[in-house]
Amino acid sequence: MKDVHAMAPAHGRLELHRVGVRGVKKPLVVQRPDRSVTLTASFAVAVDLPSTRKGSDLSRNAELLAEVVDWTAQRPVESLESACSTIARELLVRHPYAKDAEVRAEADYFARRGISPTRQSLEDFRLYAEAVARREGPDSISLARTIGAEAVGMTACPCAMETAREKLTKEFPLLADPSLKDLPIVTHNQRNRTRLDLELPEGVDVEVDDILSTIESAQSSPTYAILKRGDEADVVLTAHRHPKFVEDVMRDLLASLPARFPALPDSVGVRVVTVSEESIHKYDVTSSHRTVLGDLRAPPG
Amino acid sequence: MKDVHAMAPAHGRLELHRVGVRGVKKPLVVQRPDRSVTLTASFAVAVDLPSTRKGSDLSRNAELLAEVVDWTAQRPVESLESACSTIARELLVRHPYAKDAEVRAEADYFARRGISPTRQSLEDFRLYAEAVARREGPDSISLARTIGAEAVGMTACPCAMETAREKLTKEFPLLADPSLKDLPIVTHNQRNRTRLDLELPEGVDVEVDDILSTIESAQSSPTYAILKRGDEADVVLTAHRHPKFVEDVMRDLLASLPARFPALPDSVGVRVVTVSEESIHKYDVTSSHRTVLGDLRAPPG
Amino acid sequence: MKDVHAMAPAHGRLELHRVGVRGVKKPLVVQRPDRSVTLTASFAVAVDLPSTRKGSDLSRNAELLAEVVDWTAQRPVESLESACSTIARELLVRHPYAKDAEVRAEADYFARRGISPTRQSLEDFRLYAEAVARREGPDSISLARTIGAEAVGMTACPCAMETAREKLTKEFPLLADPSLKDLPIVTHNQRNRTRLDLELPEGVDVEVDDILSTIESAQSSPTYAILKRGDEADVVLTAHRHPKFVEDVMRDLLASLPARFPALPDSVGVRVVTVSEESIHKYDVTSSHRTVLGDLRAPPG
Amino acid sequence: MKDVHAMAPAHGRLELHRVGVRGVKKPLVVQRPDRSVTLTASFAVAVDLPSTRKGSDLSRNAELLAEVVDWTAQRPVESLESACSTIARELLVRHPYAKDAEVRAEADYFARRGISPTRQSLEDFRLYAEAVARREGPDSISLARTIGAEAVGMTACPCAMETAREKLTKEFPLLADPSLKDLPIVTHNQRNRTRLDLELPEGVDVEVDDILSTIESAQSSPTYAILKRGDEADVVLTAHRHPKFVEDVMRDLLASLPARFPALPDSVGVRVVTVSEESIHKYDVTSSHRTVLGDLRAPPG
Repeated sequence: MKDVHAMAPAHGRLELHRVGVRGVKKPLVVQRPDRSVTLTASFAVAVDLPSTRKGSDLSRNAELLAEVVDWTAQRPVESLESACSTIARELLVRHPYAKDAEVRAEADYFARRGISPTRQSLEDFRLYAEAVARREGPDSISLARTIGAEAVGMTACPCAMETAREKLTKEFPLLADPSLKDLPIVTHNQRNRTRLDLELPEGVDVEVDDILSTIESAQSSPTYAILKRGDEADVVLTAHRHPKFVEDVMRDLLASLPARFPALPDSVGVRVVTVSEESIHKYDVTSSHRTVLGDLRAPPG
Repeated sequence: MKDVHAMAPAHGRLELHRVGVRGVKKPLVVQRPDRSVTLTASFAVAVDLPSTRKGSDLSRNAELLAEVVDWTAQRPVESLESACSTIARELLVRHPYAKDAEVRAEADYFARRGISPTRQSLEDFRLYAEAVARREGPDSISLARTIGAEAVGMTACPCAMETAREKLTKEFPLLADPSLKDLPIVTHNQRNRTRLDLELPEGVDVEVDDILSTIESAQSSPTYAILKRGDEADVVLTAHRHPKFVEDVMRDLLASLPARFPALPDSVGVRVVTVSEESIHKYDVTSSHRTVLGDLRAPPG
Repeated sequence: MKDVHAMAPAHGRLELHRVGVRGVKKPLVVQRPDRSVTLTASFAVAVDLPSTRKGSDLSRNAELLAEVVDWTAQRPVESLESACSTIARELLVRHPYAKDAEVRAEADYFARRGISPTRQSLEDFRLYAEAVARREGPDSISLARTIGAEAVGMTACPCAMETAREKLTKEFPLLADPSLKDLPIVTHNQRNRTRLDLELPEGVDVEVDDILSTIESAQSSPTYAILKRGDEADVVLTAHRHPKFVEDVMRDLLASLPARFPALPDSVGVRVVTVSEESIHKYDVTSSHRTVLGDLRAPPG
Repeated sequence: MKDVHAMAPAHGRLELHRVGVRGVKKPLVVQRPDRSVTLTASFAVAVDLPSTRKGSDLSRNAELLAEVVDWTAQRPVESLESACSTIARELLVRHPYAKDAEVRAEADYFARRGISPTRQSLEDFRLYAEAVARREGPDSISLARTIGAEAVGMTACPCAMETAREKLTKEFPLLADPSLKDLPIVTHNQRNRTRLDLELPEGVDVEVDDILSTIESAQSSPTYAILKRGDEADVVLTAHRHPKFVEDVMRDLLASLPARFPALPDSVGVRVVTVSEESIHKYDVTSSHRTVLGDLRAPPG
């Protein structure tokens, strides 16, 4: 049968950066420290294409994804990221004409959380993983990996809290009493979505649960599925005692990374996006930042 | 050329309820009291199909939509709903084999809002319209129409406010002072999306701006694009002085309809969905209700 | 602590149809004939609210969902639908003021498919389930259940095929040769999404894999993740030998139900929506229909 | 009133790359050569934040967007991109502490298309624009701009066409007749979405309609809203006479740019993403590439 993909293309001198498939959904069995979990993962995989070939052999991508999923049903992978790394390396084997291969995956992820030991349940988070394999020499492949996660929590605005305090003190003079100086004052609060991605060199690993707890600590308060009557007030009070702009979420998260991940090398890349779905506006407020861990350890004075 | 659509289908006795197109986007010029505006509208149109025909003549739907859009470029329609009504009637002309025709449309809509006369801007809302034309006799077509809109506002939770007050009073005994009994207390607040649809008989009309203001009045507070420092506190205080569950938004909205729309007949259908995107949970809280205006005027005792 | 939810609301005579939560994601372990699978399910649950209560006890919904998920981790449920039924019944226990309870759930679902025994992999489908529990008497609850699924397949247009044949025969007169009368001719083909929901009385069950294969048989061809060079042509030829409008997909599906589900009673409700994401248009073509199984067995003459 | 945003943050040495708002919808009046059109645009705007400030003055963003929209109601802007440039420059005026400002916008866009002069209608496309203003010196601001668009068209697969021809020739030997060698043969065809972005230096402009026609020429065929019976076959035949992988769409588009935009300088950045929503798979096939115009004029030999 004629191999149309291997024919020469019309415009002979164009190499293409990426050709692949996306939106391939698969159930992936992952071994967690305490249990195995099944992720419903969505994959995008691609390789580059040399100027001498008309098409990329895309059916190999689908075959490989199917095989990896079948392997994990027998022997779970360590993480979504390790599945991406395995797939990226193997793509270079199956596309011998390719110089690099990129794999991205994301999945819902459940972790046990609760405001008290008796109010625990599985909260949903979102996992992200990427792996780029590059052919460095005849027998040498380098691997760049990223592992990330998004957590939804709560922010309470410090600015509206201050101006509300001023306005309310005019209406309720007793508020000026020194005994009330730490009284939490009304402000707008809202859902905050924060995503942290860490770009890791080979041989260095990060536990996704550490990424999630790092994010949750930087928000005004985590949020919970199960809150009985008194609990709601506790979450509200925690948030109002830690009022934060998205700028504060961003800085508190960045500033906490050196202590959270002391074993990671300075070269680890850090990408953060935080979004507050403002309750007082119809639009969102957002901050994004990109740096390396070394700069956070000794920020430029 | 062979007309495949008009051929007899394989399973001769099956009438189909709806066959049509959806996701047809068009710019539609609408004449408002004070100005003409261009909506980017998305249409879905469909007719029934008798058991004697293999296919519906779908190209007529696309032609008709294009013609209506061209007409409005010359002479604006009164409303998204009146465009739907025109299209529904005309579908029965162009599909002579059809007994009924259904048109649905939605579009972003901008209305001027502001916390003060000097802080005005165009806020975005969402419009919905439906029209169903039915062939009642050789020369008689009936028309059922629905006009709806969604407004995003803010709710503040009355329950967490009460329990926070109890907890805070233990920590700050001065809060029990009678002069502070109306002091707004911290609670969780969030984006609330509420949609109201009114099902109208022929000859009866409703102004969409009245639907929007009805919804906004039922939320704890409307929200605004432009809020300078002091304004944010004002919105926050308004919301905390009108704390509401989604149940309260629903009931306040339903209870306000008789006074808001005194001229509408009892038979007008009312559909409401309200959703609070909870700041203390990762999930939404929602309420939905369906009734007729007459029942809201004299609710069952 | 004050129970704000149990207080009397402002507008005393308004019963609300539905109050609940939506977008609650949970991992649900389901026992299939041959294996247990973990679904990432999204739930919406709601109950009605009497006119005497200000609010619904929403934390009970979150608690119940968490408990059901914990149960299934120990002892898998039979199906997404049976989880919905269990939850709907239990909601009436935990909301003693409610007359009815509604649960909806959906999840990605994977089933093994392949164009040949050696080209198998897990294809993704979408599951839907609903359960409505109603308090019929002091000790009596009725249960209405719906189980549904969506499959993505392929349709090839029979009309453009005929007109292309006419045009091509003018250009290539040999096409008129009788030996070529069954030659598949070019037409537009595209992704088709078809969803079938069956509304079941108590005591009657349906296997979701039977729903999926019913849908796939009604499309021009199923589609597959892994297709090697020759396989692609086989899928293309199958689709072009079974060219279908969405109207044909709908009628073929409806007509096949009596033979597919001979054991189901006449009263079973049938809802179908089929959508072809047309390759020759930017918009979709769609058909929807609602009937009962009895009418399909002896359709009105 | 206390200016909380201007206070010193807790972690004094962290500059943040971007702080802003997103999802701000506005109606924007744009002057086209032949008419003025109203776009429903969605904006994201952001500036950097120095280490000395706790917060960015976000209300200035909302004010500026509102003012620009009001200006255009009086005097239409030239393009979505020129609105972004104006906003980006003005953001640096209103955020005197910022070093750079970024604006992104997107909107549905309608252009007249048709398979013949009598079958014209408005087809929908998607516009994208970006502008980054950078403070280069006390009185000097540089501006980097991007203008892009996405068009939905059709691709027909060249590989399945070849293998189908081989299989069909075995079944229909007459197909081997030399007079049939150019007969279009069945294959899978599907919606293709291709987006082209051009990164422009200051003083250089591009007309969005030229971007759209460049994309449409690279697909197997454009698609149309209105197609009468014979027209559908014409689109199908055009697509099957220009069968293309996404790789071919990408290369044909890239190769056409030098002739399409002869006046643009070599430094213009080019970004392309093309996605085929495969009819024979449930997933998409995609290619992405990034280069500069100069490399396309004299690609590396």
